[in-house]
Amino acid sequence: MKVSFESDYNNGACPEVLQHLIDTNREMSASYGDDRWSESARERIRRECCRPKASVYFLAGGTQTNAVTLDAILAPGEGVVAVETAHINVHEAGAVEATGHKILTLPHEHGKMRAFDLEKLLAAHEADPNRTHMVAPGVVYITVPTELGTTYQAAEIEAIYNVCRRHSVKLYVDGARLAYGLAAESCDYDMAWLAAHCDVFYIGGTKCGALCGEAVVFPAGDEPRGFFTHIKRRGALLAKSRLVGVQFDRLFADGLYLRIGIQAVEMAMNLRKMMQYAGLQVLDSDTNQQFVVLSDEQAAKLANKIAFELWERIDDNNAIYRFVTSWATTGAHLDALLFALRSINQQ
Amino acid sequence: MKVSFESDYNNGACPEVLQHLIDTNREMSASYGDDRWSESARERIRRECCRPKASVYFLAGGTQTNAVTLDAILAPGEGVVAVETAHINVHEAGAVEATGHKILTLPHEHGKMRAFDLEKLLAAHEADPNRTHMVAPGVVYITVPTELGTTYQAAEIEAIYNVCRRHSVKLYVDGARLAYGLAAESCDYDMAWLAAHCDVFYIGGTKCGALCGEAVVFPAGDEPRGFFTHIKRRGALLAKSRLVGVQFDRLFADGLYLRIGIQAVEMAMNLRKMMQYAGLQVLDSDTNQQFVVLSDEQAAKLANKIAFELWERIDDNNAIYRFVTSWATTGAHLDALLFALRSINQQ
Amino acid sequence: MKVSFESDYNNGACPEVLQHLIDTNREMSASYGDDRWSESARERIRRECCRPKASVYFLAGGTQTNAVTLDAILAPGEGVVAVETAHINVHEAGAVEATGHKILTLPHEHGKMRAFDLEKLLAAHEADPNRTHMVAPGVVYITVPTELGTTYQAAEIEAIYNVCRRHSVKLYVDGARLAYGLAAESCDYDMAWLAAHCDVFYIGGTKCGALCGEAVVFPAGDEPRGFFTHIKRRGALLAKSRLVGVQFDRLFADGLYLRIGIQAVEMAMNLRKMMQYAGLQVLDSDTNQQFVVLSDEQAAKLANKIAFELWERIDDNNAIYRFVTSWATTGAHLDALLFALRSINQQ
Amino acid sequence: MKVSFESDYNNGACPEVLQHLIDTNREMSASYGDDRWSESARERIRRECCRPKASVYFLAGGTQTNAVTLDAILAPGEGVVAVETAHINVHEAGAVEATGHKILTLPHEHGKMRAFDLEKLLAAHEADPNRTHMVAPGVVYITVPTELGTTYQAAEIEAIYNVCRRHSVKLYVDGARLAYGLAAESCDYDMAWLAAHCDVFYIGGTKCGALCGEAVVFPAGDEPRGFFTHIKRRGALLAKSRLVGVQFDRLFADGLYLRIGIQAVEMAMNLRKMMQYAGLQVLDSDTNQQFVVLSDEQAAKLANKIAFELWERIDDNNAIYRFVTSWATTGAHLDALLFALRSINQQ
Repeated sequence: MKVSFESDYNNGACPEVLQHLIDTNREMSASYGDDRWSESARERIRRECCRPKASVYFLAGGTQTNAVTLDAILAPGEGVVAVETAHINVHEAGAVEATGHKILTLPHEHGKMRAFDLEKLLAAHEADPNRTHMVAPGVVYITVPTELGTTYQAAEIEAIYNVCRRHSVKLYVDGARLAYGLAAESCDYDMAWLAAHCDVFYIGGTKCGALCGEAVVFPAGDEPRGFFTHIKRRGALLAKSRLVGVQFDRLFADGLYLRIGIQAVEMAMNLRKMMQYAGLQVLDSDTNQQFVVLSDEQAAKLANKIAFELWERIDDNNAIYRFVTSWATTGAHLDALLFALRSINQQ
Repeated sequence: MKVSFESDYNNGACPEVLQHLIDTNREMSASYGDDRWSESARERIRRECCRPKASVYFLAGGTQTNAVTLDAILAPGEGVVAVETAHINVHEAGAVEATGHKILTLPHEHGKMRAFDLEKLLAAHEADPNRTHMVAPGVVYITVPTELGTTYQAAEIEAIYNVCRRHSVKLYVDGARLAYGLAAESCDYDMAWLAAHCDVFYIGGTKCGALCGEAVVFPAGDEPRGFFTHIKRRGALLAKSRLVGVQFDRLFADGLYLRIGIQAVEMAMNLRKMMQYAGLQVLDSDTNQQFVVLSDEQAAKLANKIAFELWERIDDNNAIYRFVTSWATTGAHLDALLFALRSINQQ
Repeated sequence: MKVSFESDYNNGACPEVLQHLIDTNREMSASYGDDRWSESARERIRRECCRPKASVYFLAGGTQTNAVTLDAILAPGEGVVAVETAHINVHEAGAVEATGHKILTLPHEHGKMRAFDLEKLLAAHEADPNRTHMVAPGVVYITVPTELGTTYQAAEIEAIYNVCRRHSVKLYVDGARLAYGLAAESCDYDMAWLAAHCDVFYIGGTKCGALCGEAVVFPAGDEPRGFFTHIKRRGALLAKSRLVGVQFDRLFADGLYLRIGIQAVEMAMNLRKMMQYAGLQVLDSDTNQQFVVLSDEQAAKLANKIAFELWERIDDNNAIYRFVTSWATTGAHLDALLFALRSINQQ
Repeated sequence: MKVSFESDYNNGACPEVLQHLIDTNREMSASYGDDRWSESARERIRRECCRPKASVYFLAGGTQTNAVTLDAILAPGEGVVAVETAHINVHEAGAVEATGHKILTLPHEHGKMRAFDLEKLLAAHEADPNRTHMVAPGVVYITVPTELGTTYQAAEIEAIYNVCRRHSVKLYVDGARLAYGLAAESCDYDMAWLAAHCDVFYIGGTKCGALCGEAVVFPAGDEPRGFFTHIKRRGALLAKSRLVGVQFDRLFADGLYLRIGIQAVEMAMNLRKMMQYAGLQVLDSDTNQQFVVLSDEQAAKLANKIAFELWERIDDNNAIYRFVTSWATTGAHLDALLFALRSINQQ
């Protein structure tokens, strides 16, 4: 089997998480979120966020988490503002629209939303004489790190959040890969800071060491009334809630979550350098996803030995490819890549 | 009261239509579309379209017609492709998304979709390795005439329709102001031609002489199974269907529909010339909506005597304003405008 | 053409309403509800309800009004409580469910909901240990008069409303045929009383003398935020709002609305007596809909001369048929019926 | 901690399933259903069903599976027929209605639908002159075993399925507890027979030994076009699909799934006898859920030592309580129950 850099969800659970599942398996527990591990995990997350009153809910996957949470915090006719490249706008099969909400798009800069563009959109809506015939922006959606692997600076998020508050719009942060974002060299904040600069965010588990599971956090404890039933109604409530609870209980027990991020980002930085040494163009990213430009010939050669994904075609001969690291990436994997890279420039 | 060019829906019914409502009022009839006038109107529309097997349904208003029909012809997860300025994308309060469908946007050229851009989007979707995680384009939406008053050439629609068929996507034409589009000097086709170059379109009544009502036409008689019940379920079925039936029966009795368009467009062309003579910039449009650039000072002066609408601000001192004609616009209205225009450049 | 008792929506507008449409047709007006007739009609309805702060909105038809209003006042996961025979539960093609809300049904007594049954359902829900996994009742829906033509007594509505308030649930009254309900001999309240004993109700126009149109009334002026945009989003906003405004302006100008009800109910009572004299079983109803049991043979004979609708089959040989009067029913129509009735018992 | 009979989802995974998760954890795999265990599990299920062309999809939980699958196989305006006690009708927070579909209810007999009632409903709908204004039945939903623990006989399912086919309506079987249903003494069929007598069913994992996961089976391989994307759009697609794939791969490797059912039902039958020996009334059920009538005093005494759930109150002094067994129930648990039962009749 080829060494794979296809994704951060093509391996199982990181060993510590798996062990906790094993250790707790025989114990009986309540269900639907009332098990003791879920409660413990919620408490640990509250501490990590320095938010003793935060509400925390566990869901199974990312698309589900985005659709269920956004639907709950949006009023029925409101829309969500996101950049064109946002995951909810491109790669979630219209899950947000399936709940009846429009996505209002903004241009992006390296995958990031600019506070300036957001201010312009919100101000224009408020000034529009036809605004009662239009979708009102209700929530702003950003991802940390972005779909292109870039990381917002604290000042950038703060600027966006200030715009949001000035216009009474909520800020939602999709943290599907939050571990890797917080571990990026350019990241100048931690989870507690993030919790203080948005209205709701989710901590990704599936892509950051768990078998499944995401934790939705309302730092102020102000989730919408009936949010539990809403989760059930959207088919997102796990009967054996312990499955996710146990995993997050471990991820946040002793800094494991951040360690997973740090290690994978370190691997990604090494991978990045290898690519650059091989003379390849690598797009800006200091997280666990690296985007590399390859000619079709180069890609074909590399694909003989290494597994990775086509991201986007540039022209008839070249495309951008994605290489992803995770907790499971080892030095041996990088060695295999290094070896394979030698072949691609050879005749 | 000021002379108004605010819209083509700020007057009642055109006299002939009103007379037909009066003449038929005492007669009893079946309901829910089975009245004799609806049947007669359907037959007249089929003849106008040279499509004896066309299916025709009457609904009350434009936003309703777009949402109900698009929802019916789209598969649950499919989206509709439209230009950014499309009415469904901007001014229908998210009615399409409220039925669960995403709008996939394209740039526009003077309000029109270009076949080239459409081809690119459809081809890219088909080639995208992640397409099963994305919204599939199911229908293409264009308006004749466009939201900016411009008219597609036959060759342009044909090119778009060819792209649609090549990619097995349907073409839907929003004809809220169809009478004015067909009456435009640059329009090189009639309703029969249009019926042969799309999969479904609607003939606008509300903005073209009726009190209310739009006629959805499936030229091939291939409406989705259960479309009648679908209309009911979406709250769009009128019990006294005669209300719309009688009006369309008259609009299509002796060329009235097209005459309404011709007269209003003639008035609009005169209005356009007046604006140009007054030294004002007028955007491209050969239909009943004219878009004029005015400074705030000019707009304020003109608004003392004439009613019209702000369309979009350009900068701090200038904006685009909309002036609309209809069957109710008379020479006297234009005289009033001409008189008012004299004031705007005076100190 | 046969004399028809098929429905109260198989004729045009009552003459006074039509005349008002004619008189106002040439006048220009604002749109989307801002026309002067809509404003005047709202004011007249406020007076009729003795509710100077009531909010009034005009929509086109009954199913639309129910679905749009119920959706607006229900929280996303809440359901509406109604009797099994309720129009929304049987004859609106699932329009309420299409907006995502469940209908929780109760048994009925002659079409009416009993306060006792309602209390039981609401109390049971509150006591249910699994209630967070269930649809919460948010609104109670009743019709005045009922689908079976019966009328609630004031004490019955008051009892229901008291239950609603005790459980913090809203009361919505569907008044599609309100004119006929208020005109019933057994009805011991007027519109002002009704407005004081529910949270929202609608005054039916389509079935009570108008060409189309229903008036939603929030007596306390407490419609949900953004209700106007919600109407637009659901495709229920008429551009030429004057169409409905003018009609309600006339219906509530000089007691016309109630007069329409009184006259039609008088005709219905005469019709009822004729049926009973002819030895036929007539179900309880003191409004404009009469339900008569006919054998198939009787029905076939009568149908030769009179048009009426099959309501529900009883067994292989007998069924219930519906006979409806309206403003358009005349003594001559009743004479024709009387004549036709002679035939049915003959060999 | 008290011995618990609260549910079959208050324990972890059965040991064999957990071991397979451990054994496969380090292996890299494809995602979104393309991992090798999911493929292997699908193949095993096809064999179990004797249906080599069956399509099999893995989802995370039961409510999700019902809502996503029913929505996919229903046409937009169609409804699902179910008994009043059906899980989708009572305990899924309106998840089916949230996708826009009405549930049409039938009375039940010990939790079961009767073919006779179904035939009556479907025939009545087809004969109803107003059926185009009504929700059309599109799918029939039954549960095996039922919510009350009872099991359909083969002849009963066959009768229902025949009615379905005669009326061109699909049959969907909710098998959340299928292992226990097939293990019931009264059950005279196996999974292959069931697969041949419905259009789609799901095999419950969460309540039958897995940590999470349900397998939707279309025996004829005729899932709706785009079903994969539909799952994604409804937020039900797991990125690490291996999580469910690995578990079902083990459950169907060597008869484990059925063994889990047999053992739990045996425990339940012992529990049942204990209750009866203690002079308590136990409702009909030969599966892993037993429903016992207790006075409040009895319940309070028992609850000191044993955990179980209130099902439904009978009157002010008595209620029905649910006791559930699973793969994790042992003889020691039953001994604890037996010991506790002694106390309840003592003064």
